[in-house]
Amino acid sequence: MPFHDRPVFPRGFRCASRNCGLKPSAKDLALFVSDADAAAAAIFTCNQFPGAPIILGRETIKGGRLRAIVANSKCSNVATGEPGIAAARRMAAAAAAEIGSFSDRVLVSSTGVIGVPLPIDKIEHGIAGMAGDLQADPMLGAEGIMTTDTHPKALSASIGEATITWVAKGSGMIEPNMATMLAYIFTDAALDAAVLDRMLRAAAAISFNMLSVDSDTSTSDTCAILANGMAGPVDETAFLEVLTAGCIRMTEILARDGEGATHLIRATVRGAASDAEARRVAKSLINSPLIKTMVHGADPNVGRILMAVGKTDATIRPEATDAWINGHRVLQGGARLEFDESVVRAALSVETVDLEVELGVGTASAVAYGCDLTNGYVTENAAYYSS
Amino acid sequence: MPFHDRPVFPRGFRCASRNCGLKPSAKDLALFVSDADAAAAAIFTCNQFPGAPIILGRETIKGGRLRAIVANSKCSNVATGEPGIAAARRMAAAAAAEIGSFSDRVLVSSTGVIGVPLPIDKIEHGIAGMAGDLQADPMLGAEGIMTTDTHPKALSASIGEATITWVAKGSGMIEPNMATMLAYIFTDAALDAAVLDRMLRAAAAISFNMLSVDSDTSTSDTCAILANGMAGPVDETAFLEVLTAGCIRMTEILARDGEGATHLIRATVRGAASDAEARRVAKSLINSPLIKTMVHGADPNVGRILMAVGKTDATIRPEATDAWINGHRVLQGGARLEFDESVVRAALSVETVDLEVELGVGTASAVAYGCDLTNGYVTENAAYYSS
Repeated sequence: MPFHDRPVFPRGFRCASRNCGLKPSAKDLALFVSDADAAAAAIFTCNQFPGAPIILGRETIKGGRLRAIVANSKCSNVATGEPGIAAARRMAAAAAAEIGSFSDRVLVSSTGVIGVPLPIDKIEHGIAGMAGDLQADPMLGAEGIMTTDTHPKALSASIGEATITWVAKGSGMIEPNMATMLAYIFTDAALDAAVLDRMLRAAAAISFNMLSVDSDTSTSDTCAILANGMAGPVDETAFLEVLTAGCIRMTEILARDGEGATHLIRATVRGAASDAEARRVAKSLINSPLIKTMVHGADPNVGRILMAVGKTDATIRPEATDAWINGHRVLQGGARLEFDESVVRAALSVETVDLEVELGVGTASAVAYGCDLTNGYVTENAAYYSS
Repeated sequence: MPFHDRPVFPRGFRCASRNCGLKPSAKDLALFVSDADAAAAAIFTCNQFPGAPIILGRETIKGGRLRAIVANSKCSNVATGEPGIAAARRMAAAAAAEIGSFSDRVLVSSTGVIGVPLPIDKIEHGIAGMAGDLQADPMLGAEGIMTTDTHPKALSASIGEATITWVAKGSGMIEPNMATMLAYIFTDAALDAAVLDRMLRAAAAISFNMLSVDSDTSTSDTCAILANGMAGPVDETAFLEVLTAGCIRMTEILARDGEGATHLIRATVRGAASDAEARRVAKSLINSPLIKTMVHGADPNVGRILMAVGKTDATIRPEATDAWINGHRVLQGGARLEFDESVVRAALSVETVDLEVELGVGTASAVAYGCDLTNGYVTENAAYYSS
C-alpha cells in the first residue's frame, strides 16, 4: 500500500492544536474540522466504565453526521460522574460556536489520567480563536492528542480521486476492544454513514482490535471516520481495501510506539480451527510478558512460544505445531529444533519481529500486533499520575 | 491459622537436595521420601503443551500411591518429544532404585528452561547416594527446587495429632490453571487417595488457582499431596480447613516472591453476580500491568481500578461500584473520591496491598493473589535463557 511520504489531508479538512494549560507547555488541545458536514461513523470502547466523552459520543454519532472533532490530552474525563458529562457537553458547544456549527455535529475526545475533573474552563478558553489557526496539515492535530506517545502519528493514501487520512495516538492502556484510543480517519470520498460504519467495523476488526500494548482496555477508546464527499463517489471495494491497509499500518505504528517499546511484534497464526481461535492464540502470543521480554532481550527462549499457545483453549495438535521467528524455524512438531542461536538472536534483534505459528488443525488465520516489555514501560507507569 | 515458627515434616517424611551439575554450584536436585507408601493425589497444568514429567505424572498418580518425589531445576524437560519422556522415566527409575521402591510410586518434576534436552546422565549420577543424605528438614528439599525464587519456601501446621507440610517454588510463568509450579504437600494423617484428591482440588481452587505473577501458565505446574497415615485418622472437615489455609498462605508467599516483586497484591471482589464473575474481576485486577505498576510506584492512579473492572464481561452497576486500598475508600459509585493523596500513597507503600472492590450486584466474592510489576521482572526475563 503506497502511503504518502508526508501525510496530507483530504479536500476540505483542516486542523489546529495548542496548549491550553492542562500540560505545562506541550500541546494538549486539538480541533479537526471539515468545511462541510461529513457523513460519519464511530466505534467506542467496550470497557464497562466508559468516559464522559464516550457516553456523549455514542449519542452524537447516532446522527451519522459530523463537522468537527475536539480532543484534549492530560485528563480523560473518566469516572467523573454527571459533572463530567456536563463538561463534555460544554466542550462540544464551545467547539461548535467557534466554527459556526452545532453541538450535535462535534465529537469530543479526552485522554489522560482517569478520575480527575476536566478543567473545562481552561479548555473553553483554549478553544476560543482556534478557527483562525486551522491548517491543512494533519500532523498539527496529531501533536495535540499525544500523551506518552513519543511522536505524532498520521498517515495518508490516495484512492482514485479521493484521499484517506489517519490520525491517532496510542502508547499505554492499549488492548482496544472495538477500537483504539483515539484514531480519527478523514476522507473526501462520498460515502454514506451506514456504509462507513460497516467498513470501519470490518477494518478495525483486523487492525485496531488486534492490537495490544499491555492487555489493558482503555475507558476512552474511540475510532471515528468522517467522509465529506468533496471528491465524489469511489469504488467501495477499493476504498475498503485502502481503509483496511491504513488501519493495519496505523496499528503497527501504535504498537511500535507502545510505552517503553523498542520492537514491533507481529504474531501470525495459521492453520487454526476457526477465526476466533486464531485470534485468541495470536493475542496470547502478543500479550505474554515472557514472549515480550524474550524479544526485548533477544533471548532465544523459544519454548515460551509453546507455553503461550498451549495456555489458550484453542484446538491444538502438538505434533503439528511449528513456529518461526522472522523466517527461521525454531519449533517443529511441538518440540524445539536445534538451531544456530546466534542466528535466532540476530532475528530477534531487528526492529520488527515476526512470530509465525502454524497450528496444523484447520485453515483459519489471524495477525495480532504488539510490542516488547521494557524497563521503560515499568518506569513510565509507576509514576504516570504523579509526573 | 498458626503455622509453626520453623517448618517441620510430618512423621515418616524426609528429604535431601544437592548440586548435580545442571547449575554451576547452586542446588538443582531434590528428593522427598516417605518411609512407607503414602496415599496421594495430584493436579497438573492445563497448558496444552505439558512437559514430559506431567505426561508421566498423570499416569503415575492414577495408582493413588507414592513413596517419593524427585525434582530438578534449571531444565523443565518440556517440548523435548519422546526422548524427554524416556528421560523422565529414567529419573523415576533412578530414584526408585535409590530408595528401594518402584518407578510407579515416584513422582517426577522438572523446572527451568523449556525446550532443552534433560541432562539425564548428570541427574542419575546425582541421585545415586542421596538416600544417605535424607533429613527431616523440609527446607532442604525446598532449596533444591528453586529457580528464580529468592528464598526457599516451606510451611507446616498441626492438625490434631497430624502435621501438614507445604513445600513449593514459584517466581515466574505463574498463572496456574489447576495448580501451581511445584507445590508439594506432605501429611502423616490417614486419608485415602480419593479424599485427598477432592480436598486438594477444593483448596487449590481458592489458593493456587487464584495466583498470578504474570498471566503466563507454566507447562510444568504440579501440585501433589502425600498422606502416609502415620498419625492415624483426622477429622476431615478440620483437615480441609488447615489444608486450605496453608495453600492460601503458600500462595501469598509465592506471589510476594514473584519475579522482581516488591509487593504482595491481594484483590478481593465482593457483591458479584456469581463466583465465576468474582474470580474474573479479581484476576483482571491482579493481572493488569497498569495496576501492578501503580502499586510498584505507590502512584495513587486509582482510576485504573475502574478500568480493570470494566474491561471484564462481568455484570457491573457503575453507580454501585466502590473500591478501597488497604482500607481507604478511593472510589464510590463508579467515580473517584476526593482523598488525601499522601494517605493513599502511604497505603500503597506497605508490603501487602489489599485492593477491595464492591460490585453491588450480588453476593458472590473471590480473592486473587499477585505482585507488582518492576524493572526486576523485565531484566530477569529478558535474559533468562542466556543467563
